[in-house]
Amino acid sequence: MQLTELKAPYLIFLGSETNETYAKTGAGVAHWSPEKCMGQFHLAGGTVDLGLEEHSIESAANQGAKTLLIGTAMIGGGIPESWTKVLVTAMENGMDIVAGVHSRLNDIEELVLAAKANGVKLIDVRVPPKNLPVGTGKKRTGKRLLTVGTDCALGKKYTALAIDKELRNQGKASTFRASGQTGIMISGSGIPIDAVVADFVSGAAETLSPDNDPDHWDIIEGQGSIFHPGYAAVSMGLLIGSQPDAFVVCHQAGRTHISGWPEFELPTIQEVIDRTIDIGKQTNKSIKCVGISVNTSALTTDQAKEYLAALEEEFELPATDPIRFGVENIVRTLQ
Amino acid sequence: MQLTELKAPYLIFLGSETNETYAKTGAGVAHWSPEKCMGQFHLAGGTVDLGLEEHSIESAANQGAKTLLIGTAMIGGGIPESWTKVLVTAMENGMDIVAGVHSRLNDIEELVLAAKANGVKLIDVRVPPKNLPVGTGKKRTGKRLLTVGTDCALGKKYTALAIDKELRNQGKASTFRASGQTGIMISGSGIPIDAVVADFVSGAAETLSPDNDPDHWDIIEGQGSIFHPGYAAVSMGLLIGSQPDAFVVCHQAGRTHISGWPEFELPTIQEVIDRTIDIGKQTNKSIKCVGISVNTSALTTDQAKEYLAALEEEFELPATDPIRFGVENIVRTLQ
Repeated sequence: MQLTELKAPYLIFLGSETNETYAKTGAGVAHWSPEKCMGQFHLAGGTVDLGLEEHSIESAANQGAKTLLIGTAMIGGGIPESWTKVLVTAMENGMDIVAGVHSRLNDIEELVLAAKANGVKLIDVRVPPKNLPVGTGKKRTGKRLLTVGTDCALGKKYTALAIDKELRNQGKASTFRASGQTGIMISGSGIPIDAVVADFVSGAAETLSPDNDPDHWDIIEGQGSIFHPGYAAVSMGLLIGSQPDAFVVCHQAGRTHISGWPEFELPTIQEVIDRTIDIGKQTNKSIKCVGISVNTSALTTDQAKEYLAALEEEFELPATDPIRFGVENIVRTLQ
Repeated sequence: MQLTELKAPYLIFLGSETNETYAKTGAGVAHWSPEKCMGQFHLAGGTVDLGLEEHSIESAANQGAKTLLIGTAMIGGGIPESWTKVLVTAMENGMDIVAGVHSRLNDIEELVLAAKANGVKLIDVRVPPKNLPVGTGKKRTGKRLLTVGTDCALGKKYTALAIDKELRNQGKASTFRASGQTGIMISGSGIPIDAVVADFVSGAAETLSPDNDPDHWDIIEGQGSIFHPGYAAVSMGLLIGSQPDAFVVCHQAGRTHISGWPEFELPTIQEVIDRTIDIGKQTNKSIKCVGISVNTSALTTDQAKEYLAALEEEFELPATDPIRFGVENIVRTLQ
């Protein structure tokens, strides 16, 4: 098994969280993969509601829950000791435990012993699978779209999920391919590309979107930015290994500098298009940009429409804010 | 400590090796860092001679050897069980053990216990230091030269070592910065860049060549190629993080395809220059190519001279084969 794979249905564990911001992972899974979520489970004091059925560990297990998915992130990314009993009970009830926080389940001895005793798995989705290959560069069958960005954290995952969903709504064959922890939890499989050893990044990206039917689209979650002073190596390996036929540039309206790197101006959308094509051509000569996806949350609806219309005119490409206006205009370009 | 650091002087361990090809690491260390090598040590049957003084473990320890450096690589990269006794004896005599082979010293329990008991270190130079930072992209003081390539395995390490040596011969301040295992053994410190997790590759490269005196040159060993279908992510992170002022393109005369990737034509030298400048400008606007270094081993001396002269005319840059003709012409361009 070369991808991290999770077993559905999930019981989403929300701890005693009262702040929705810290339950983003659980909310993302419930929003994008409701069919995989059989319920939610709180500790005393927890108030976050994902709109799923409330369960105890036992009632969830009785109704077939196969995985307890930790849907909250504490500040600092830890796994509180007070959770140990709950996690052990879930394992005794036959569930795997899945976490994407900074601390590793597999570093906590009591959990490791309980997993062994109960024949279940502790899955840290930040830890990449072992034995990933070096990239071969060989052309694979099927079609691929990669979301790229002018920076980190401006909608590459959301855009990919939205495009995948729209394609499937239209009856087309499509799979979302997760390259980060939240994406892996949402889709149930993937590879955390940024945690892969440098020599194997493009090989990991090749593994993530294997040969497929000629009409099938893999919609691949992008990472970082090819212009990023910290993370460009990740974006480079993902681009080379994904060998995308199509890419969408993701951007945030009003962002002028690389977030957290204030000395670096954001590259322009044109620069991102040019360099992505320049590098992407190495493994797919027919790579092309098919759209621009913008987080317009800083703008009014009218401003957003005007902003997107200006982009469409400048680049002669469909532009949208996937949250506000959907991605139908981009999907229309995918044959 | 963020670089892997080795303690000189070294006793080079050659096992019972009879084939010089498999003692390349030891030979490289003896050639480039003779001042760090106090002697060599064989097991029965070993015939490879690096021209160093022969020692037993005990006589080497008596003369101050601080490290037993494994200078041979067996096929498969293992550490034979028959070596355990020797390695333990070296540790009992106060030496660290250094290896760059595929197997890890730190995975062999008997060695780990002996290291602990004797207060010495087992250093696997293929394993990067812990806690490497994410790249900041901040400009550092001092000057930097990076060797880049049209492919892997065509002289990037040799060229960097030769340029560093020539600079020092001319009385200039220079340090060779090793980014691979053999380079680390030669120079006594460095970071194995290709083994670093993707998120930290440019940060590792920044760590490798820290702030320095304004007139000091860091001569950084390149890795892979920015056009390589397997390893481009490594080359990308190293380029971004090194923020070189100058780079030298390394090439092998007659090589037409990426070695081991026969479906991929080698990029041209011009393509490598253009893309290296294009990407390198992100962290150093004054990056420029200062020379071309060619492995001309497939050519006669006359053919090599003709080949290099043609390159000089085409690119208006100094071109050389560092083994045949030295690197004085390239070093002359470094201010």
